Amino acid sequence: MTAPLFVRALRGETVERFPVWMMRQAGRYLPGYRAVRARTPFLDLCRSGTLSAEVSMEPVERFDVDAAIVFADILLTAEAMGAPVVFDDAGPHLPRTIRSAADAEGLHEADLAHVRGTLEAVTLLRRTLPASKAVIGFSAAPFTLTCYLVEGGTSREFNAVRRFLHTDPVGFRAVVSRCARALVPYLDAQRAAGADALMLFDTWAGILAPKDYREVVVPAVQEVLAGLGASRPPTIYFPGLGAGGHLEAAASTGAEALSVDWRTDLASAYARVGARVRLQGNFDPAALYATPDEIGRRVRAMLDEVPPGRPHLGNLGHGILPDVPPEHAGAFVAAVQAYRPRRPS
Amino acid sequence: MTAPLFVRALRGETVERFPVWMMRQAGRYLPGYRAVRARTPFLDLCRSGTLSAEVSMEPVERFDVDAAIVFADILLTAEAMGAPVVFDDAGPHLPRTIRSAADAEGLHEADLAHVRGTLEAVTLLRRTLPASKAVIGFSAAPFTLTCYLVEGGTSREFNAVRRFLHTDPVGFRAVVSRCARALVPYLDAQRAAGADALMLFDTWAGILAPKDYREVVVPAVQEVLAGLGASRPPTIYFPGLGAGGHLEAAASTGAEALSVDWRTDLASAYARVGARVRLQGNFDPAALYATPDEIGRRVRAMLDEVPPGRPHLGNLGHGILPDVPPEHAGAFVAAVQAYRPRRPS
Repeated sequence: MTAPLFVRALRGETVERFPVWMMRQAGRYLPGYRAVRARTPFLDLCRSGTLSAEVSMEPVERFDVDAAIVFADILLTAEAMGAPVVFDDAGPHLPRTIRSAADAEGLHEADLAHVRGTLEAVTLLRRTLPASKAVIGFSAAPFTLTCYLVEGGTSREFNAVRRFLHTDPVGFRAVVSRCARALVPYLDAQRAAGADALMLFDTWAGILAPKDYREVVVPAVQEVLAGLGASRPPTIYFPGLGAGGHLEAAASTGAEALSVDWRTDLASAYARVGARVRLQGNFDPAALYATPDEIGRRVRAMLDEVPPGRPHLGNLGHGILPDVPPEHAGAFVAAVQAYRPRRPS
Repeated sequence: MTAPLFVRALRGETVERFPVWMMRQAGRYLPGYRAVRARTPFLDLCRSGTLSAEVSMEPVERFDVDAAIVFADILLTAEAMGAPVVFDDAGPHLPRTIRSAADAEGLHEADLAHVRGTLEAVTLLRRTLPASKAVIGFSAAPFTLTCYLVEGGTSREFNAVRRFLHTDPVGFRAVVSRCARALVPYLDAQRAAGADALMLFDTWAGILAPKDYREVVVPAVQEVLAGLGASRPPTIYFPGLGAGGHLEAAASTGAEALSVDWRTDLASAYARVGARVRLQGNFDPAALYATPDEIGRRVRAMLDEVPPGRPHLGNLGHGILPDVPPEHAGAFVAAVQAYRPRRPS
């Protein structure tokens, strides 16, 4: 059976058109998602396989995107590792912050009982979707999970993380490595449940200088990929916001594709990573505020930067913004799907 | 009379050692600054030429840095243009946000009476400092000033800015251009008061995709530099946080130097801008949490990336963090000053 278009492109096969999906495509900008959330607290949604699968399906049904990513919260993994997470109106936070290697000693491999809803949703998605659509499983990458554990939530500058890294580099690396090992069973269980591809989100790795990125972040991603072993599905790695300076190093992680944020020209990103990896991205999420016509023009200009003959994974450079009109998202998807890749001359 | 080392390097002359200063060097990490602030409200400090000059001098006296930047708040200019700013415990905010070109019609050229303290401080600094030290005047760059005016303060994602830009690109550019024209008299007055160099901070320009950066930000910086005319002192332009993807475009603004944040390897930054401009930076401000020995090692590794024969302006990649021990800042400055630039072979 032929693999889904998205998976073939991800593996590096020449494709007739570029596949497309959108980070956070199952989210607040969609009426179906809002209707579910109006009657369901966030955690109940994450813990219900049926509801998670339902909201994950909405963008496929509405826009015919080429892949569904399972709806889940990135911090459920922290909880599954033994770090309590409080979800309230101010956003998720972790009351027990990790500020030393000793603080991290109580953390264990992800307990799959805590993420059963997500795994059930993956199973349901793979069973429900046609074979032409890919199912993507995901987790935070080890460094970004460490950021949440150390900072106790999200942050603008992650100064607690940067202070820990620079005052105790050995201890910090031990925590990142522990996160890497803890994530492996979770990602492997998503594969076993039917995920055709995995994505690792290193959303905050862009806060680091290149030297620290190479020495701290890259080995941890390699540790996850090695831990997944021979049965690993093809993997997309997002080196984070403002991580344009890390592309060469990110290309050495072993991931099949890198997701690139919108602050880098795709032409120079391709030139820098060479033929080693595929790229995913990198439409400015804010450019979805523009008119559908302008969205189409910008999509074509973006895809014209893909070197002829190379498969590209159409996506945004980061998550879709919650106040974008759904029909603008539809214009983006349609423009990528209508684009005919240039052939090598 | 020989120009200060900092100015000679900024102009592109070969120098015996690299000059160094630190963004936000006159700030909260210093005991003298804290003592002044303990008895002086923030705005009173900004409005007093004597006090501004006093805190601007402290890093020169303590660390022997090669340049003093005048202590001032970037938002005083907004007020001088007719946009009221409230400084309270939550940080500065602008109650009257600009969300259309019409909203910006009341804005006028910077009224120098509002920034008299800053201009007096520049005069005092130039009179007090030895000729070997440079005095740097500064302002926000037009796009970043626009960000504050539109958002009504600082922001994590600047979504109001991005929405305005993409829903009304013509109106948005009109606001940015108005800011460019408004800033010229302020910067020119700093020159007339004795500033040897100017710096334009485009702190938030890194939120933009390269296309929008080229079309919106670059022309506005060029407009400021053209407005300053033939008497303009050499200028350093900071294209912002995470703006590594914008370096080539930033090099076309006409500024003599670009300040680079810490998320870009200096070697590749030099390769990308070529011989057109000098570079300033780009030590990770968080790496000042490391030990003085480690700081020295990292400084040398950073400066080893400067192409032989090129003058470099030693600095951090962004402002010094408020909880850095002053002696670590001293270790940074000393390591740059002790470094002997490689000569062309």
